[in-house]
Amino acid sequence: MFDIIIIGAGPAGLTAAIYSARAGLKTLVIEKAFFGGQLGLISKIDNYPGVPHTSGYDLAIRMDEQAIEVGAKIVTEQITKLSLNSNIKTIETSNSKYEAKSVIIATGTKRKLLTCENEAKFTGLGVSYCAVCDGSFFKGETVAVVGGGNTALEDADYLSNICEKVYLVHRRDEFRGEKHLQDLCMKNPKIEILYNFIVNKLDGNVNLESMELSNVKTNEKILINVNGLFVAVGIIPQTELIKNVIDLTEDGYIITNTDLQTNIMGVFAAGDVINKKVRQIVTATGDGANAVNSVREFLNSIDN
Amino acid sequence: MFDIIIIGAGPAGLTAAIYSARAGLKTLVIEKAFFGGQLGLISKIDNYPGVPHTSGYDLAIRMDEQAIEVGAKIVTEQITKLSLNSNIKTIETSNSKYEAKSVIIATGTKRKLLTCENEAKFTGLGVSYCAVCDGSFFKGETVAVVGGGNTALEDADYLSNICEKVYLVHRRDEFRGEKHLQDLCMKNPKIEILYNFIVNKLDGNVNLESMELSNVKTNEKILINVNGLFVAVGIIPQTELIKNVIDLTEDGYIITNTDLQTNIMGVFAAGDVINKKVRQIVTATGDGANAVNSVREFLNSIDN
Repeated sequence: MFDIIIIGAGPAGLTAAIYSARAGLKTLVIEKAFFGGQLGLISKIDNYPGVPHTSGYDLAIRMDEQAIEVGAKIVTEQITKLSLNSNIKTIETSNSKYEAKSVIIATGTKRKLLTCENEAKFTGLGVSYCAVCDGSFFKGETVAVVGGGNTALEDADYLSNICEKVYLVHRRDEFRGEKHLQDLCMKNPKIEILYNFIVNKLDGNVNLESMELSNVKTNEKILINVNGLFVAVGIIPQTELIKNVIDLTEDGYIITNTDLQTNIMGVFAAGDVINKKVRQIVTATGDGANAVNSVREFLNSIDN
Repeated sequence: MFDIIIIGAGPAGLTAAIYSARAGLKTLVIEKAFFGGQLGLISKIDNYPGVPHTSGYDLAIRMDEQAIEVGAKIVTEQITKLSLNSNIKTIETSNSKYEAKSVIIATGTKRKLLTCENEAKFTGLGVSYCAVCDGSFFKGETVAVVGGGNTALEDADYLSNICEKVYLVHRRDEFRGEKHLQDLCMKNPKIEILYNFIVNKLDGNVNLESMELSNVKTNEKILINVNGLFVAVGIIPQTELIKNVIDLTEDGYIITNTDLQTNIMGVFAAGDVINKKVRQIVTATGDGANAVNSVREFLNSIDN
C-alpha cells in the first residue's frame, strides 16, 4: 500500500514525487511513456529559474534522478483501470495492481500538430508550440503564428513585443478568440493577419526559413519568409483515463479547488492538466509541491 | 518609464523578472539587500526540482544571472517612498526615482530567531528554519522543534515521518496551534512534548549535538541530545513599506486573488509575502511566472 500514487512523470509529477518522498510518504509514480512527459521533447529551455540554457531532456533527467534519490519509486507502465472512489485507491496496469491512500493526477497535455510537410523536421529548429517559452529566441526576427483561438491571438500579441514582424495565419475568415484580443492584434502594426490560409510546407537549410501557404478559397499559393513558426492550434489535456470519474471542464481539463483537490476525496491534480491560466514548467513544479501539501493535510485528516 | 517594477530579488521576484524581460517588457527589480533574498541564506537545498544538491547562494546567483541575461535591470537600493494608487506607479529610493505601469511585490518574509546561545553558529549545521525544506537531511535521527503554533505542530508531525524521535519544545503549558494538530502530535509515539521549556544554549563539535533547556516554572535545566533543531517561532512578512496601501491579513501577508492581483489596480504580489499555504522556493517561482501573466493581461487591458 502506497501513501500516494502520482500519475505522470512530467515536472508536476516529479516535483510531487520529490516533496512526497522527502516527507516520508511511500510514493509511487506511474508514467506511461518516458519521464519528463512533454518536457522531454523540448530542445531548448531558457525560462526555468535556476537552470539557464538547458534542454527538456536534461531537466527531466535531473528531476527524475532527484525523485528516485529521495526514495520515490517510478515505473513505466500503461494504466488499464482506475478505481478512485473508495478510501483505498486501486490502479491496475498491464503488469501490476497498485493500492494507495491518495492519488495525484499529473498527466499533462498533448499538443495538437499542424500536420504540414516538414513540421517534425523543423521542430526545435524554428517550429515551437509555446510562445512564452520560446518567443525570446526570436528577438528582432520574423515569425508566424498559426491558429484562430485565444492562444493564437495572445501569442501574436506576445511575440509582437519581441519580434520585428508577426504573421498571424488562420484558416478561416474570422477568429474564434475573444473580441478584445482580436482588436489588439488587428491594430498592432507589427502583426499582419493572413485569413483563409493553411500551411502546406516548411522549408529551410538547417533552421526554418520559409513557409508555403495556400488560400483555402482561391487556392492561391504564397511563400513567406520566417525564422520562427508558433503552432497554436490547440492542446489536449490527457484526461481520457479519468473522464467519467473526475469533474472536467468542457475542454477536458481537471477542475480543482485552490488546494488542487478534485471532486473525489483523496484525489488531487497538478500541472498542465488542471484548469488554469499559465502552463509553464515552473508553474507545474509549483503545483506539484502544493498538491503534496494538500495530500499531507488529507492523510492527517483521515487519521493516517 | 518601466513596464514593470518588481520589488524584491528572491525566487519570486527573479522569476518574475525572467518572464517579464523575456516577454519584451521593460523590467526593473529593486532589491534592498542582496539578490536571492532569504534564499541566499540557505546552505543546502535538495528540493528544488532540476537542481539537486545546491546551496541557496548558488541557486540565487543562477536566477540573478538569468534575469540580467534576458534584459532585466536589477538595482540594490532602499525604497524610501511608494505611490501606487495612480496609473503611473512611482517608487523613490535613496538614489533615484522610478516610474512604472505596474508593480509586483515580492518582498518575502523574515524568519524569527530563537535568540539562544550559539543559534547562528549551528545554522545550517543542524539548526533549520524550515522542516519541509530540510527535514529529510535528518532521516532516522533525533530532532527538536521549538514553537507552539500551527507551524511547530505541523513540523513535528512532518518530521515524525522521517526522524527516529522528535522533541516538541514549547515555552508555555498549552499550544496556540489548532486542536486537531495538537491531537496528532500528542498521540504520536515518536513525538515527546516538553512544555514550559525554553532553549538556553546549543552545543556540538562541528554539527549540533545537544540543547540545554530550562523550565520556566521550576528553573530545572535539562540537556537533550539532538542532531537537528527546527525553529518554528514564526515568520514575519516584509510588508512594512506597503502596510497602509495594500490590503493585508491580520498577520501582515498580502491578500491577492487567484491572479495574484492586490486591491490596487496594476499592483500584483508573488512569493512568500502573499497569503497562502505553501512557502517553498518552487512555489515562489511558480508565483513569479503567474504574476507576470497577470501583469501582461493588465497591460493589454489598459491599452498598452
